[in-house]
Amino acid sequence: MVVGRSPELDELFRPTSVAVVGASNRPGKVGTSLFRNVIAAGFQGVAHPVNPSWKSVSGVRCYPDLQSLPDPPELGIVIVPAPQVAGTIDELGRAGAKGAIVISAGFREIGDAGAALENEVVARARRHGMSLVGPNCFGVFNTDPSVGLNATFSESLPSPGNIAFVSQSGALGAGILKYAASERIGFSRFVSVGNRAGVDENDLLAALDRDPRTRVILLYVESLANGRRFLEAARDVTEHKPVLVIKSGRTTAGERAAKSHTGSLAQSGRDQLYDAVFAQSGVQRVDSLAGLFRLAKIFSSGLALGGPRLVILTNSGGPGIVAADAAVRQGLELPFLPEAVRSALTSRLPTIAAVANPLDMTADVGADDYRRTLETLIESPGLDGALVIATPTGTMTGESVARAIADARATTRKPIVACLFGVTDLSEEATYLESQGVPTYTFPEEAVEGLGGLARYRAWLDRPHLPVRTFAVDRAAASAVLSRAQSVGATVLPEYAARGLLEAYGIPFPRSALARDVEEAVRAGDGIGFPVVLKVASPDISHKTDVGGVAVNLRNAAELRGAWERMDRSVRAAAPSARIDGFEVEAQVPAGKEVLLGIQRDPSFGPIVVFGMGGIYVEALRDVTFRLAPVRPLSAQHMIESIRAYPLLRGVRGEPASDLAALGEAIERISQLAVERPEVVELDLNPLIVRPAGHGVTAVDARIVLAPPSDSGTTV
Amino acid sequence: MVVGRSPELDELFRPTSVAVVGASNRPGKVGTSLFRNVIAAGFQGVAHPVNPSWKSVSGVRCYPDLQSLPDPPELGIVIVPAPQVAGTIDELGRAGAKGAIVISAGFREIGDAGAALENEVVARARRHGMSLVGPNCFGVFNTDPSVGLNATFSESLPSPGNIAFVSQSGALGAGILKYAASERIGFSRFVSVGNRAGVDENDLLAALDRDPRTRVILLYVESLANGRRFLEAARDVTEHKPVLVIKSGRTTAGERAAKSHTGSLAQSGRDQLYDAVFAQSGVQRVDSLAGLFRLAKIFSSGLALGGPRLVILTNSGGPGIVAADAAVRQGLELPFLPEAVRSALTSRLPTIAAVANPLDMTADVGADDYRRTLETLIESPGLDGALVIATPTGTMTGESVARAIADARATTRKPIVACLFGVTDLSEEATYLESQGVPTYTFPEEAVEGLGGLARYRAWLDRPHLPVRTFAVDRAAASAVLSRAQSVGATVLPEYAARGLLEAYGIPFPRSALARDVEEAVRAGDGIGFPVVLKVASPDISHKTDVGGVAVNLRNAAELRGAWERMDRSVRAAAPSARIDGFEVEAQVPAGKEVLLGIQRDPSFGPIVVFGMGGIYVEALRDVTFRLAPVRPLSAQHMIESIRAYPLLRGVRGEPASDLAALGEAIERISQLAVERPEVVELDLNPLIVRPAGHGVTAVDARIVLAPPSDSGTTV
Repeated sequence: MVVGRSPELDELFRPTSVAVVGASNRPGKVGTSLFRNVIAAGFQGVAHPVNPSWKSVSGVRCYPDLQSLPDPPELGIVIVPAPQVAGTIDELGRAGAKGAIVISAGFREIGDAGAALENEVVARARRHGMSLVGPNCFGVFNTDPSVGLNATFSESLPSPGNIAFVSQSGALGAGILKYAASERIGFSRFVSVGNRAGVDENDLLAALDRDPRTRVILLYVESLANGRRFLEAARDVTEHKPVLVIKSGRTTAGERAAKSHTGSLAQSGRDQLYDAVFAQSGVQRVDSLAGLFRLAKIFSSGLALGGPRLVILTNSGGPGIVAADAAVRQGLELPFLPEAVRSALTSRLPTIAAVANPLDMTADVGADDYRRTLETLIESPGLDGALVIATPTGTMTGESVARAIADARATTRKPIVACLFGVTDLSEEATYLESQGVPTYTFPEEAVEGLGGLARYRAWLDRPHLPVRTFAVDRAAASAVLSRAQSVGATVLPEYAARGLLEAYGIPFPRSALARDVEEAVRAGDGIGFPVVLKVASPDISHKTDVGGVAVNLRNAAELRGAWERMDRSVRAAAPSARIDGFEVEAQVPAGKEVLLGIQRDPSFGPIVVFGMGGIYVEALRDVTFRLAPVRPLSAQHMIESIRAYPLLRGVRGEPASDLAALGEAIERISQLAVERPEVVELDLNPLIVRPAGHGVTAVDARIVLAPPSDSGTTV
Repeated sequence: MVVGRSPELDELFRPTSVAVVGASNRPGKVGTSLFRNVIAAGFQGVAHPVNPSWKSVSGVRCYPDLQSLPDPPELGIVIVPAPQVAGTIDELGRAGAKGAIVISAGFREIGDAGAALENEVVARARRHGMSLVGPNCFGVFNTDPSVGLNATFSESLPSPGNIAFVSQSGALGAGILKYAASERIGFSRFVSVGNRAGVDENDLLAALDRDPRTRVILLYVESLANGRRFLEAARDVTEHKPVLVIKSGRTTAGERAAKSHTGSLAQSGRDQLYDAVFAQSGVQRVDSLAGLFRLAKIFSSGLALGGPRLVILTNSGGPGIVAADAAVRQGLELPFLPEAVRSALTSRLPTIAAVANPLDMTADVGADDYRRTLETLIESPGLDGALVIATPTGTMTGESVARAIADARATTRKPIVACLFGVTDLSEEATYLESQGVPTYTFPEEAVEGLGGLARYRAWLDRPHLPVRTFAVDRAAASAVLSRAQSVGATVLPEYAARGLLEAYGIPFPRSALARDVEEAVRAGDGIGFPVVLKVASPDISHKTDVGGVAVNLRNAAELRGAWERMDRSVRAAAPSARIDGFEVEAQVPAGKEVLLGIQRDPSFGPIVVFGMGGIYVEALRDVTFRLAPVRPLSAQHMIESIRAYPLLRGVRGEPASDLAALGEAIERISQLAVERPEVVELDLNPLIVRPAGHGVTAVDARIVLAPPSDSGTTV
């Protein structure tokens, strides 16, 4: 990352002078279309082509080199062969340029030789303090009429609008722009980040957040430049503007393709980390390009839902039902209509109409029924928005119902979304409705998808903004455990040490005591309370059950004595040379649900908390969820609720609910440990027992892996 | 259902003479647009308007009544008010009509009075042996130029094509026709079935199967007229033609809306039965109208995939990756390219291109590279079809690449599907490609969705056509159990009787013996083999554990004696008046996985087999699946594989696999019982223990409910 002079990145988006190095007149060359685009888009600054081979390019005086330019270029656009790019950057820097967009390919994407060239380009840009876009990219545009910059080689420039688009794939960006132009979708800014040697999506999120012309930000990425920085950057932006992302390479095949495409790090099975970072930053992930535009359209309209309560108004039952199904899938609510609304409508509508939600007015109604009914519905405080489905009929033309909907729209700030069923998105009626602030879709389920996006964004904005909790933990004890382990070079903590570290962070374990003889064990059992577990304690025995070193469910002193004797014999016979520190007497863990809670680390995402149902659920069903640490209280709760086996924790069929509050706190405490103890590279509580509500959690088995001494403290 | 003279339903689809009763000239009336449509569509027979109010309709001589017609009408189209419809049907019948399409509304959908009118209409049609469509419907069309029938009041008639569409929602049908007309989607036939008092989707499936102009059948239904008949009808059709369905009302909200819309039976929570019937009949269910058309387009092309192995060819990495992700979601395979293909291509493509799958030729290639590469790929025996993604670039126009793809298409019968990325579906290039047999989509994921449909249909056609297995069961013993229970009027079978019935059908239970004294019990234990379970046997004790009547895991004779004494005391104390037949000694069930297996019955779907993981999985996670009985071997296997917890049965982390063969057989045996014993209205094996492979299954607990004596044998 090479960030420029300002977080706004004005040197890239609002340059007053531009030099296109490698501009050309030869048909089919990138330098030809690019310079033509710069000129044709109505650039408000001054643009100079630079190329020793031409006297003029597209009719504009061409200069042989950067030194000859009459105006110092604020932004350089570079289309020269890869080996010449570093030199060009230097010249640009010397000429005073603050930014460079390197279109040229032949860098990291082609292997080591290219990577070396790319490193050199970055070094030069850094030396001159220049913002760098690319290399290997499709360019940048800004449709702001006071700038008029089209520094791409796109054939089609979309109309001005309020959608910003950042793409890691140049050709995908190009295709999208072409599509958008034909569908009349307006953009504010576009950046193809290419190899991201300089500016990346994180820098751009911050810049686009500050752009008053941008209302919604679209990202296409195949990997994140830095997962942790993305979390921070996106979390800021989504407070002001919705961010929609396609992260492709979700499947192994897709990932293989993405890897070969971008040369990015393999992140096998890491797709859930992307889900985590998007969930924690309020970014909406979509899986399809078509879906991206369905959401972009509604966010672009500037409409906002106050809540999830939707009414569906239709003159045709079938599409209403399809929409109702889709609404439920999108997490929207279709409340029963408030009594006031019902009585107001009953008098007006044909007797055959069912005053329900969806409200099917039947095919007999006219455009005016639409207007009046919609006005009645939308002013009800019990409804947050409306989906209007209208199939033009003999009694009602598309034009008249479009006008009726627009009239109703004018009376409210609540979103009204339309599906003129049977009429395409590009029809006159749809165009008219959209001009009147009514996003319009061809199919009802698509309209609902858009409304679902608004509802999710509303829920994100309205979430309780709870800070990360920091618990008072026994830092001295924790540090003592860790430095002791590090002093002997241990990377896997012994069980008692793992327990010590976790107890220091407030994770409860069963009460236990080390007994050196049987009488001490019985006293310990009395103190802890029966039933108890007896375990051999020896630094030389790692698999206790193999030597008969574990006895469970000892209900009283007599059983404890019997177990002691049997264990003593069996352990000494099986492991005659082992040093025996004594036998551990431990409270039998009471019944509860087994969950898994752990820490992992990732080079891009940093410390990660993992949570899932324990035992077979983890192994066979992969019912686990991830969040980047630190985990806030709300995220901890979402983790618990997001696993498929959540009903088992919530309690079913009269079973008591588990102690979800204690479980949430345990997640947050483990998150705190992950953040405060970078030397812990892996931690597994499996199982952690979650007892019934009010009875807390108890860890049973803990495994902790430390970074090798040399790495200690440097792991992200 | 009133089925007409022929399974082809020619009286509806190919009439030689038509009478439109209720034809009109008044603008905005259904009778006006309908008669105009009949005339305008180029009807090849003779059409007469019938209405005493007019001398002529749309310029055609109008008759006051049916008796006055110069030609006997083969088909009547009825648009008169509801109370006059029955009389009109009578007149049509007397005039020799073989079919009637009743457009008029005001029947079952408005309540009891309407239902009475509808019953009368049905009775009259039946009396005359007429086929009846409707009432409350939007009509019928057939675009066959030798017929040219448009008996709908649609504003737009789609172009002729090979897609047939059957809709339970008239207005939805109308919207679809309008949409299709603007998108140049061609239809063969259309039927709005309305209230389905006569012809229903099952009759139409059979008729459309026989229509040589129909290549793919689309259904929109809110409920099935008869789930069981649908299974049979659809299973036949899908051997010849793909059937795609939207069954709306999937969610509770949608179902509520559907119920109020169609007045159909409430079928709460029955959506999984629809999934079952579609899976068993090879019908592809889609959730969105847009998705329905994406599939219809590719099936309409007549292309077929020979297998799931897809190659993706692109000049742009991003869309290729999006397509790869989508392909995996659709169950398609993206094999590594065969060596012969790799070496053939390596010499030809730019060095920067990765010869992988997706094959990204990079933006530098031209149209001719597309043609040659595509030809090389598609002739490889290791690949079944190709998705070509092309983003028009400076080096390649949309037109040239479209031509290149079409040229390659001409060399093969394998499907080639295109995504001209950035170019809309209605562009000239897309239109040209589709005319050349290359289905073309705007977005890569949509193209993949189409290919996924082809692959699923191929898998359906290629499935092993295994017959229903009929096991040699002990029918005499089963009948004895049932008649004994029925003779005493029992509806819930006692445990031993349930066991007897199930054992007669080959479902194993643990070995057991009734012991009358403790010595007999010990002998039984020796015979069965320890460990054993001891249970009180009494007709008066239904909850044995409540009275201390169950002891498990008795490891030897001594423990059995002890348990006998304790149980004897405890049961006599807790239930002093209970008759005690003795104590049951039962083999302890060895370890295994607990599953649920059962029978349910449904008025529309008939006998149903239910399968899922047992215990908490059923209660909390609803991890169950359904199939209509009889269940074939393949369906039994699909049931096992389709539950989420399937990995637990298949075996994970070195755990042995469960005995899936025995489990499949148990499913089929239960299915046989369901079919042969209609008096069993409910059956639950919960749990059935599935032991490791080779060790079979063992039932532990069985609950069987019989129909009340009066119903016996009549339950579907």
